[in-house]
Formats: sequence, C-alpha cells, structure tokens
Amino acid sequence: MSNTTPVSDFSELVESVIGSYLAEPKTRHIDAGELANRDGVVEIVHLLRELLFPGYFGRQDLASSTLKYHVGELLLDIREKLTRQVHNALLHATTGNHALTRAEQIVRDYLAEIPKLRAILATDVQAAFDGDPAAADTDEIVFSYPGFFAVSVCRLAHELHARGVPLVPRIMTEYAHSVTGIDIHAGASIDEYFFIDHGTGVVIGETTIIGKRVKLYQGVTLGALSTRGGQRLRGVKRHPTLEDEVTVYSGASILGGETVIGKGVVNWSRAS
Amino acid sequence: MSNTTPVSDFSELVESVIGSYLAEPKTRHIDAGELANRDGVVEIVHLLRELLFPGYFGRQDLASSTLKYHVGELLLDIREKLTRQVHNALLHATTGNHALTRAEQIVRDYLAEIPKLRAILATDVQAAFDGDPAAADTDEIVFSYPGFFAVSVCRLAHELHARGVPLVPRIMTEYAHSVTGIDIHAGASIDEYFFIDHGTGVVIGETTIIGKRVKLYQGVTLGALSTRGGQRLRGVKRHPTLEDEVTVYSGASILGGETVIGKGVVNWSRAS
Amino acid sequence: MSNTTPVSDFSELVESVIGSYLAEPKTRHIDAGELANRDGVVEIVHLLRELLFPGYFGRQDLASSTLKYHVGELLLDIREKLTRQVHNALLHATTGNHALTRAEQIVRDYLAEIPKLRAILATDVQAAFDGDPAAADTDEIVFSYPGFFAVSVCRLAHELHARGVPLVPRIMTEYAHSVTGIDIHAGASIDEYFFIDHGTGVVIGETTIIGKRVKLYQGVTLGALSTRGGQRLRGVKRHPTLEDEVTVYSGASILGGETVIGKGVVNWSRAS
Amino acid sequence: MSNTTPVSDFSELVESVIGSYLAEPKTRHIDAGELANRDGVVEIVHLLRELLFPGYFGRQDLASSTLKYHVGELLLDIREKLTRQVHNALLHATTGNHALTRAEQIVRDYLAEIPKLRAILATDVQAAFDGDPAAADTDEIVFSYPGFFAVSVCRLAHELHARGVPLVPRIMTEYAHSVTGIDIHAGASIDEYFFIDHGTGVVIGETTIIGKRVKLYQGVTLGALSTRGGQRLRGVKRHPTLEDEVTVYSGASILGGETVIGKGVVNWSRAS
Amino acid sequence: MSNTTPVSDFSELVESVIGSYLAEPKTRHIDAGELANRDGVVEIVHLLRELLFPGYFGRQDLASSTLKYHVGELLLDIREKLTRQVHNALLHATTGNHALTRAEQIVRDYLAEIPKLRAILATDVQAAFDGDPAAADTDEIVFSYPGFFAVSVCRLAHELHARGVPLVPRIMTEYAHSVTGIDIHAGASIDEYFFIDHGTGVVIGETTIIGKRVKLYQGVTLGALSTRGGQRLRGVKRHPTLEDEVTVYSGASILGGETVIGKGVVNWSRAS
Amino acid sequence: MSNTTPVSDFSELVESVIGSYLAEPKTRHIDAGELANRDGVVEIVHLLRELLFPGYFGRQDLASSTLKYHVGELLLDIREKLTRQVHNALLHATTGNHALTRAEQIVRDYLAEIPKLRAILATDVQAAFDGDPAAADTDEIVFSYPGFFAVSVCRLAHELHARGVPLVPRIMTEYAHSVTGIDIHAGASIDEYFFIDHGTGVVIGETTIIGKRVKLYQGVTLGALSTRGGQRLRGVKRHPTLEDEVTVYSGASILGGETVIGKGVVNWSRAS
Repeated sequence: MSNTTPVSDFSELVESVIGSYLAEPKTRHIDAGELANRDGVVEIVHLLRELLFPGYFGRQDLASSTLKYHVGELLLDIREKLTRQVHNALLHATTGNHALTRAEQIVRDYLAEIPKLRAILATDVQAAFDGDPAAADTDEIVFSYPGFFAVSVCRLAHELHARGVPLVPRIMTEYAHSVTGIDIHAGASIDEYFFIDHGTGVVIGETTIIGKRVKLYQGVTLGALSTRGGQRLRGVKRHPTLEDEVTVYSGASILGGETVIGKGVVNWSRAS
Repeated sequence: MSNTTPVSDFSELVESVIGSYLAEPKTRHIDAGELANRDGVVEIVHLLRELLFPGYFGRQDLASSTLKYHVGELLLDIREKLTRQVHNALLHATTGNHALTRAEQIVRDYLAEIPKLRAILATDVQAAFDGDPAAADTDEIVFSYPGFFAVSVCRLAHELHARGVPLVPRIMTEYAHSVTGIDIHAGASIDEYFFIDHGTGVVIGETTIIGKRVKLYQGVTLGALSTRGGQRLRGVKRHPTLEDEVTVYSGASILGGETVIGKGVVNWSRAS
Repeated sequence: MSNTTPVSDFSELVESVIGSYLAEPKTRHIDAGELANRDGVVEIVHLLRELLFPGYFGRQDLASSTLKYHVGELLLDIREKLTRQVHNALLHATTGNHALTRAEQIVRDYLAEIPKLRAILATDVQAAFDGDPAAADTDEIVFSYPGFFAVSVCRLAHELHARGVPLVPRIMTEYAHSVTGIDIHAGASIDEYFFIDHGTGVVIGETTIIGKRVKLYQGVTLGALSTRGGQRLRGVKRHPTLEDEVTVYSGASILGGETVIGKGVVNWSRAS
Repeated sequence: MSNTTPVSDFSELVESVIGSYLAEPKTRHIDAGELANRDGVVEIVHLLRELLFPGYFGRQDLASSTLKYHVGELLLDIREKLTRQVHNALLHATTGNHALTRAEQIVRDYLAEIPKLRAILATDVQAAFDGDPAAADTDEIVFSYPGFFAVSVCRLAHELHARGVPLVPRIMTEYAHSVTGIDIHAGASIDEYFFIDHGTGVVIGETTIIGKRVKLYQGVTLGALSTRGGQRLRGVKRHPTLEDEVTVYSGASILGGETVIGKGVVNWSRAS
Repeated sequence: MSNTTPVSDFSELVESVIGSYLAEPKTRHIDAGELANRDGVVEIVHLLRELLFPGYFGRQDLASSTLKYHVGELLLDIREKLTRQVHNALLHATTGNHALTRAEQIVRDYLAEIPKLRAILATDVQAAFDGDPAAADTDEIVFSYPGFFAVSVCRLAHELHARGVPLVPRIMTEYAHSVTGIDIHAGASIDEYFFIDHGTGVVIGETTIIGKRVKLYQGVTLGALSTRGGQRLRGVKRHPTLEDEVTVYSGASILGGETVIGKGVVNWSRAS
Repeated sequence: MSNTTPVSDFSELVESVIGSYLAEPKTRHIDAGELANRDGVVEIVHLLRELLFPGYFGRQDLASSTLKYHVGELLLDIREKLTRQVHNALLHATTGNHALTRAEQIVRDYLAEIPKLRAILATDVQAAFDGDPAAADTDEIVFSYPGFFAVSVCRLAHELHARGVPLVPRIMTEYAHSVTGIDIHAGASIDEYFFIDHGTGVVIGETTIIGKRVKLYQGVTLGALSTRGGQRLRGVKRHPTLEDEVTVYSGASILGGETVIGKGVVNWSRAS
C-alpha cells in the first residue's frame, strides 16, 4: 500500500487530533492514573460464577473428596484480582487514603457473603424451573438461561455496590447487559425466588424494590417517570416497588418512585 | 499486595463455601460426569455456518475446482465434534445405553439435511432482500443481518431438537440470542421465506407454528398466555400459530396456543 | 470415536452438499474475491475508540508530553487497516477502477474528521450525564454506557457511509447492535447532545433525522410505516424526523418518512 | 492468488500423496488410536516445575498461610493430565489390559516421590552455586540456568522411565534437549549434587551411571563405543560410569559400557 | 510509573535513533517491500510435517476411508501459503517479472515431490531404528528424534533451494537449527538412509555431499577449510564428500571441498 | 477418569510436598516479592530488536516520512516495560532504596546508547557477510543468522550488566542461548566486527575480552581453567583475551584468565 501522504499533512493530522484532546477534557484521560480494566472485571465475573456454581463452569470434573483445594485456590485468585480492581476504583473516586486497606476489608466481607448468595440463587433456579414449562431440568437453567445469568451477576454486583465500591459493579452489570439484553442497575433491591423469562429489553432502575416470587418477562421496564431533573435526582427513589408474587408480562412499563404494584398482581401491558 | 488474613479465617471461608455446596444441590455439579461444553457448541455453530454459506465465513478464497476437499474436511471436523457433544448430552439426559451409537446415527442423519437447510435458507435471504429497502445486495444479508443469523442458527438447532438431542440445541439458540437479542426456541416450527427485521427483543416460543412468507419486526413476542401452570404445561401447545404471509410490527405480543393469525394479516401492535 | 461410515456414503454426503452450492447461488461466495473481514472491521472500531477517547481504552498511562508518538502510531495503524477494508469493499461493489486511490482519499478525508467527531461526542457525554441521575461522573459514561458506545460507533460509521463506502459501515453498526441491542443505521442523521438510556431494542432507520438535545429510552423504534414496497423504496425517506429537544420514552414506535415530532415534544408510548 | 490448476492435476497430486502413504507404513499413523500429545507433555513439565520450585514459576505471590490450596489444586491438575498421558502411552505400547488402573497407580507412586526429588534438586542448586563464580545467588540458578533445567527435567523423566512408562519420558527429555542443547536419556542414573555448566552439546546415554558431586561442561559425551550392533544391544550397558567427584571438561568424549572414571578424576578433553 | 522526562529529551532520543537509521543502511529495511515472514515459514514447515507424516502431527484420528479430504485440504492450504512466501522471496531477490507465475510453478513442482520425499524419509527412519538401541519403535523416532526432524526439514528446504528460491529455505533450516542444534545448509546433498544421533552441534555446509547409509554423531562439523576468501568463494565446493556407509563420531571436524571420506570409513575424532 | 484416592491419602500427599518446601529453602520462593518475569524480559528483547533493525521484525511497511511516530511509540513501550523489570530486579537484589528512581535513570541512559549499538552491530553484519560465502545478502544475515542474533542480544544485555542491573541481562542471554546454542555471558567485552559462524556450543565466559575483527566457529569455548575455587573466584579475570583479527575454528577450547591469543592468530582446535 503506497503511503504517499506528504509528511507535513500527516503531522498536521496528528496535531489536530491532539488539539482536540486539549479542547475537550471530558473525553480524554491523560496524565492520570489507571482507571479500571474492563477485561479484568469480566474475568472476575467468570471466576465468581465458577465459585457459585461448582462443576458447571470451568472444571467439570470436581470430586467432593478434593474440593477444598479447588475452592481455596479459586478464592485466592478471586481475592487477589478483585482487591486490585476495587483498590483502583477507590483510588479513582476518592483521595485514596487507606484505599488498599479498605479494598482488602471490602473483599474479605464480600467473599464471606458467597454462601448467602448461593442460598438465594438456589431459589432463583427453582423459580425458573417452576415458571418455564420448556425447562428440561435445573442444570439447563444454571447452564444456559440468560435471565438467570443476569440475576446472578446483578446479585454479585449489588453486594459490591452496597459496600460503596464505584465503577466495578457498573462494569459487571453492563457486561451482563451486553450478553443478555437485561439491564439491571446494581443498586436495585431484589428478594428471593426471582425469575426473568427471555429477558431481552428488561430494564430495572437503581432504586427499584422487588419482593419475593416476582416474575418478569422480556421488555419490561421498571423505570423513572422523568429524569428531566437530571443530577438533582441523584439518590432519590425514582423507580417502582413490586411487592411479593407480582408478575409483569412482556413490554410493560412501570414507572415512578411512588408506584407500588401490590402483592400478587399480574400486570398486562396491553391487549394483543 | 499483603496477604495478612490469619490462616484460620481463610480456612473458615473455604469451609463455609463448601458447606453451602452441600446445603444446596440444585446449583452444584460435583461427583458427576461432563455436562456440556458451551465453547465447543459455539465452535460447531461457526463451522456449520461455514458449511452452509461457503466463502462468506472462514476461508473466502474457495475455488469450485477444489471445493470437495474443503467441504469434506469441514464435514469430517463437524461430524467428530458434533458427535462428541451429542454423545455427552445423551449421557447426561439418559441412562446412556448405546449413547455413542445413537449419537453417531443422529449426526449422520443431521448432516444429510444440510442441502435442504441451504434451500430453505436461500428463501430467507430472498425474503430479507425483498423486505428491506436498506439492503444493498444479498451478500450484505448473509454477511451481517442479525435476523438472518438468528434464523439460521434456529433452523440448525431445530433439526437437532427434532431428533431428541437435549441441551445442545438450547446452547445454540441461546448463543444466537446473546449475539442478536432474538430468542427463538429450537422447538418452534418455521416455514420458508421468513424474515425478522432488526430483531432485538423478538421471542418465539417452543410450540409456535409459523407459515410461509412471514415477517416479524423487533420486539415481537409469540408467547404463552400464562405459565402459572409451570411444568404441568410441558409439551402442551402454549404459543400461537401464524399462517402464511403474516406481518407483525414491532412490539406486538401474540399470545396463547389457540391464537391463530390468519393468512395475510398485518398486525399493528399499537398506535404511535 | 469409530468412523465406520462406508466411504461411498461420506462421498455422497460431500457431493450432495456441493450440489446444493451449485443449486443456490445466493448463499455461496465461490470463485470470487475477498468480500470483507468482520474481525478486521471490529478491530478498527476498537482502534478508533482508542483514538477518540485517549486513556480510557488501550493504554491508560498516556502522558501529554509524549502523546504525539502514541497518536501518530495509532493513526498510521488505523490508516493502513481501514484503507485495506475500504479498498476491498469498493472492489466488491464496483468495477474497481482506481479503487485503491479512492480508498486512500476516503480514509484521508475521514481521519481529518476525527476532531469534529470528538467535539460532538463530548456533547453526547454531557447529555448522558445531565440526563441520568445514576451517573457518578463522566468517566463512567465513556467507559461503560452502552448508549454512548452505540452512538459513538454510529457517528464513526456515518462518516464512512456518507463517503459512499459499502458494507464496512454496516459491519460497524451491526457490531454495536450485537453488543448493545441498539440498532442505528449508519445513514441516520443525528445532531449533537444525543442520549439513549439503557437502549436495548432501540431501532433508528436509515433515513431518520434527529435534532439537537434528543433523548431516547430503550425499545424505541424510529421506523418505516411499511416496507411492502421493498427494494422500490430504496433511497426514499421512510423514517421520521425528530426536531430539537424531543424525548421518546421506552417502547414507543414512531413510524413513517413524513412523521415529524416537533420541537420539545415528550412522547409517551402508552399508559402503564 | 489465481488457482488455475486444472482439477485433474490437483486430484492426481492428492492421489499420489495418498499412494505414498499406502506404500510406506513406517511413517504413517492412520486408522490407529491416539499416540501421544507433545504439547500436553510439555505443559506437564511446566506444571511439575511449578510444583518443585514454588514461587519461581507460575504464581510468584505465594504465602505460606494459604499454600496448601495452591499445592492441592496444582497436584490435582498434574494428576489428571499426567494420568491421561501415561494411559495413552500404555495403550499404545501394550495390549491395554488394565491400562487405566496401571496409569493411576503409576501416577500416584510418582507424585509421592516429589519430596525426594526436591531434596536431591536442592543439592544440584548448591552444586551450581559452588561451582560457578558467575552465579550471583541461588535464585538465579533456579530461574535461569539451562543445566539445572535439563537436570530437573531428567530427574522428573527418570522416575517415569523407571516405572515403565513409554514415550512420555522421551518427550520430556527431548523438550529439555530442544531448549538447552543438553541431551540426557531418561534412563541414566545420576546421583546428588550434579552440575552441568553451559551445557550445550552434552550427551548422556541411557545406561550411564553418575556418582555424587560430578560436574560436566558443555560438549561432553558420555556415550557408547559403537552402536553397529543396533537393536541387538538394547538393554546392554553401553555407556560409562563416573564415580564420585569426577569433573569432565568441555568437549570430552567418554565412551563404552565398561569405562569407569574413578573417584575424583578430572578429565581434560584435549590440549587447547 | 512517573514519566517525568522533559519532552525535549525524549524527542532528542527519538531523533537520535532515527539518525542512526539514516547513518547505517545495512541494518534498516525502510521504504521497501515485504521481506519475508518467519512465522509464516515456520507454520509451513509444520503443515508439511503433517503432510509427510500423517497421524503423528496435527490430527491423530485419520481414517483411510476419508483421508483424501484431509490431504486435499492440507495441500490447498500449503499451496496457498507457500506460494505467498515464495512470491515475496522472489520479489525481494529479483526484479520481479513474472514472480507470481514462477512462484506458482515452483510450488506445483515442489508438491509433486512429496511422495519421493516420503520414500527417502522412510529410509531415514529405518536408519535411526537400526542405529539406536534406545529406540523402542519407529513411532518414537518420527515423533521425537531431533536428528530425524532436522533431516526432514533439510530435505524439505533442499527441494526449494534446488529450485532457486531465496531466503525461505534458509529460514526453514535455521528454524530446525534453533530447535535441534543441528545446522544443515539447504544446499547440502544427502542420500538415503541417513541418521544423525543426538545431533547438537552438527554443522553440514552448503556444498557437502553425503552418500547412502551415513551416520553422524553430535558435534560433527562437515565444514570449509578456510573462508578468508569470503564472498569470492561463493559457489565453490568448500565442504567435504562422505561416501556410502561412513560413520563419523562425536566432535569430529572434516573440512575442505577436496576432502573425501571413502566408503565404509569410521572416523574417530579423538582419543578419549 | 475415576478419582478414587481416599481423601486422607491426597491430603497426606499435599502435606508431604509442603513439608519438603519447609525443609529446603533454596528451591522455594514463598512469602517474598516478585522475582522477575522471564516472558516479560523476552518480550523486551523482541521490542529492542524491532528498534535496532527497523523493518525486519515487527512491522515491515515502515516509511521514512512517518518513522518518528513508530520509533517514539516503540521507545515509550520499551521504556515502560524495561523500567518495570529493572525495578523488580533492583528490589530483589538490594534493600530497595530509591529503586524506582535508579531504574528510571538506568533505562534513560540505556536507551541513549541505541545509536551506538546500531553502529557496532552494522560492523557485525558486515563481518558475517565478508566471512560467509553462503550469505546471499546482508538482509539474510539480519533476518536469520543465529550468530548475529546471539551477538545482538549479548550487546543489549552487556549494557544493562555494565549498569549493575541484576538478573535481567542473564535472562536475556539465556534466552539467546536457548534459541541459538550460543552462550555468551553478558559481562564479556566484545569489540566491533565480530562474527560467530553456525555457533551451536559456543561458550564465552564472563571476563573474556575480544578485540576487533574476531571470528569464532561452532563449539568454541572461551572458558576458565578451573572453577574449583567456586565463589571465591567471583570477579577475578578467569577467561581469556583474544586480540584483534583472531580466528578460532570449531571445537577449540581456549581457557584461563591469563591466556592471550595474539593479533591475527588462527587457532586450529585439532587435526581432522
């Protein structure tokens, strides 16, 4: 390929691009520390999935007699990698005092929650099996249901979000969003036995509260009424509450922080 | 990174995670055989796409004079890899008698269907070209249309599903779902000249029947009325029938096993 | 694995597949030149993202004192790779006279637009920050918002589409579609300060015109009324116009080339 | 690239190559089981090196408080992979009765030797440090000395060879040969505190016996007098014996099964 | 890592390195075409080894009933890749007229030699088996003997060298040299039933002639007497001739173009 | 694979291996900092080779008009990676005060030597061309001669060794040793126009001094007379001096710190 550009032209191009960096600081990250590493966070999601669902992902030949070595090594690996990401995220967001100590403490507390997370995720698997006649067995759900994957990642991210870790939970949930089309903010509060069927297009906002035994179909929005208030609304409850045993069919939008869907309601979005 | 955890704490963490494995069998797969290999199935999808659409994917420099060697080697590779996955899936689902013989027979019959699949996929390409003014030529459709990709994978998975192969068709269609946002159950019956435009959010349920020359837009649900019956509904026709030449516009939900959209109907989901 | 197929059977299988290639030319690409390389185009998207948002993607340790070497090398890499893809695309679509010269000229003009693209993308970041109370800072938007990613790729693809490059812009936008569930045709005209929140299921058609300070939510369709006219409609304005400061809430469909949503309108798709 | 070969010519080429397979069985391996997997054996060498020298290779951040998990997982991984290779090797060499049981027993016995191997390898490190004024510390020897690497691999291979495992020890030592230029047959018997300096060109034959505190330089051959007897010599002691504290300088050839270099001898190959 | 270099210093460093490029043309390759691709040539060596020794390298599950597809596809792959490398090498060395046509002709002739190469390599395997009591079977020789690998690559490179291809044969033999320590120039003429035992340090010069049933040990040099004449000696016979059934033991140097080692001679390099 | 080991046996195995770690500190690296990263150092060697010989390795399409961007980016990459390795090596060897500042200073000084290194390496290329009638052109030497590669790496390592960097120069030269069979200690002092032909088995010791226009053949040792003194000899001149225009033929050993081979001597190792 001939490269016949006169050198002055190419130099001008380089200079004009650099000039555009100087002109607009919001979209550059120069002379600054490490921000985050999306690939690193995605790897941690997969390692946590191995830990949560032993034998489904990663090594499939686990034997109970030697399980502790596998689990121990996996926990060491997760602890090291997650501490690094949390540390970077804390440094980026704050002045960084004691960031490493805080990161280590957060990760220690976080990993201690794994058994509780497993208990609640088992109810989610059961909800999927009970709710989907097409499910052949529970293995198929753990292994391949996008709704279950999105909920798993959301529960993992929620525990970091609840401990004040910036950016990392967002990268986790956006990864699940990218893979499944299900966009659950890590701040949402979701009780046990939760099932999202099909799931593409589901949006669950930051301040949503969801009770037990709730079921959502694809395209459901649990959103804000209006965000014209922008950053002034930060922290305000803007998204609805769904009480226990609510079902919301595909395409419904339930909006607003004061909206409550009462226990057992079945919400039909529209006539078909 | 300092690793100052007292050893007893870390051992306790390991033990508590293992305890949660013992407590909840639905989300563990320990002391059991190989379940399935998602990456292996995804690779097979890509090899089958090379076989179906020669010269678009994989090697682009195919010459008709030497085509048979390429096709033969590709078929050998697919045959070996697919037989292994089908074999594992049969072992997982059944007592495993004659599983290998059955897997080999299924794969042999399956590969013999490739010419028929090519014939029907050619009608799908034509449907996309006729239905989308933005399509510059048919190459663009084969190469880049997500709706066509999802339908191709669904037709490939359907033939395995029809032969009683568990899990593998599901992994195939969930892969297409993840890439395109189009969720077609491998059990759905879809006739020729089918086109899904844009496609994100489309759901087509397990017992759906779709006639010839049907066109769907993004966000269309062909679903069940209610699944409160759960596993008792397994095998029952729960999803609608679309007769020939039906068009369903974006966001429409057509629900229920007894719902029939008659020939030539154009379904508008809502006023805009 | 025993390979007991009699040789004649396997030869017959090979012959039948090849026969199906001869029977159906629309889904084969044999005895023809290189068509395009999806992986190559996706790599270019990522390199352009590094160029547009320095320090967020790729190397994070950029220093302003040595920035010009990094930018220069990146531009050289993009120029070479993009020229090759544009060249192949032009060869495929036309008779190929002067294709290389034209490709080089197109890429030169294209890269000169990068500073303008950065300026308009900075308004998009601001729109996301102003419109989403959940956004902690603008870094999070650049780094992880799928709506911003889709709009970035669309603006990059639009400039190639406007210069008459076939196939490559489509591969770019379909890649963004696959990752985000947001399907924006590279032909759409989109003014500054544009924000798509959540985004899964959004469709923006080829001849759509969008003004300044417009905001869309997930599942919004800006589509055609009917495409029954098929290829005869090619080039006709089939998609709506949204004037400045329009907001369209989730799930709305706005259809037709003559539809205009006037300045400042807030469009509610449906009661919930 | 034009592919203008007439099809008959290319078919003839294929047929002539296949004809040459039929003509010469010694250099084909068709219609037969899996032979061995060089890459798999090389991976095992590296895992064993991690096990033998913790913290030098693989993970460098090991803490004694959590070491057992790392070691346990590593041993499980090695046990599984080595059992598979030994099993294949036994199947290839014998009628295969009880091959899996034998492979499992061999690997179990083999791994129990690791502590003894570590003890003798520590004497080899000391020998290198004592014998090479250029060595800054023992870490440098473990980390980068080719002679120490070759001896480590040889000791690992020797234990498999002594248990009757075919092919695998050979692949191990040929890997070390390829990396270091040092060719030690896995059958050689080598006592503690052994050092090979520089090492390229060293050959140590199958029936060599080497005492304690022996040092060899590059290019030394401990070989057979003549192998004209070919396969009839199989199993006969054909290579020399070096008693304790022998030093052999570069380029010397010591040949023959009855040759004994007595305790403490320093062998000069030639005047310089 | 702080990057505190003042910008002028770094710019000066860049300029001084570029200045050194201008000052010394022998070690730069700028404003010039593609030279060669070492990785590409190494890949071809491995593909040719798969072709020569079916079932040992690459796929191990070959069945004679479907072999022709595997061989055909492999030959197509080799033909395409080798033609590209030969083409580049011819362009680099000559004015490039008809370089592509010549490259295609050379590769066509070259591949037609494969059956003859297989026949002679079978004699080499036999020679190794007859000559090494440590060889358990011929599979072990094909699979793991470095001498056999080096001779295989040399015979492959020799056929390209004999057809006037520059650079590519050299890259092939230097690759074998790097792996085995055996340095055979592609120009050397070597008859059947040839065996190099151990092999590290063997050098066989460009104009060497070796008869049938010759055996060399490690460290043997078949070299030139003096190369003080430098480039004036180009093309002159500078290396020895070994007649049939010669054996040369380790470390011997046989030098000079007029030196002939007569039939059946056994050459001892030195007393030990 | 059945995993029937009783758990107590496996636990005992783990404990016995860990016990062997406690027993022998010389071959463990536990509860300690990062030691070094061989893969990282090897990558730096390849980046430095790209910098020294532009257009031969890495990108081959360099144009002088845009060279400065390529060189600048390459230097930034090398600077960052080499600083990290040197920093780790200094930390390992010393108490670590100011280790980062020292590492940055060392790398800055080191990179300033690149032009001088290029000048002397150009004389080495010329020496190879003048000395080897088989060399077709100088490109072939830069691209494929192992002797030239080993000398290049040695000169690169020597400059780090001379600045007191531990471990890194050793890893560099051992990498070259592994690839070429040529073992040059980074401490050796080697003047311009140096050529090693074939090279396998060459050893050049730490305190060797080599003048201008020297040529070595394969298997030459420039070594120490005896190293029985072990670590007491550290720093003493133990290896010979070769004055200008010396040639040493294959297999010769020249030993001892007081040995001087005078100007112009041609050393024959032995009668053949």
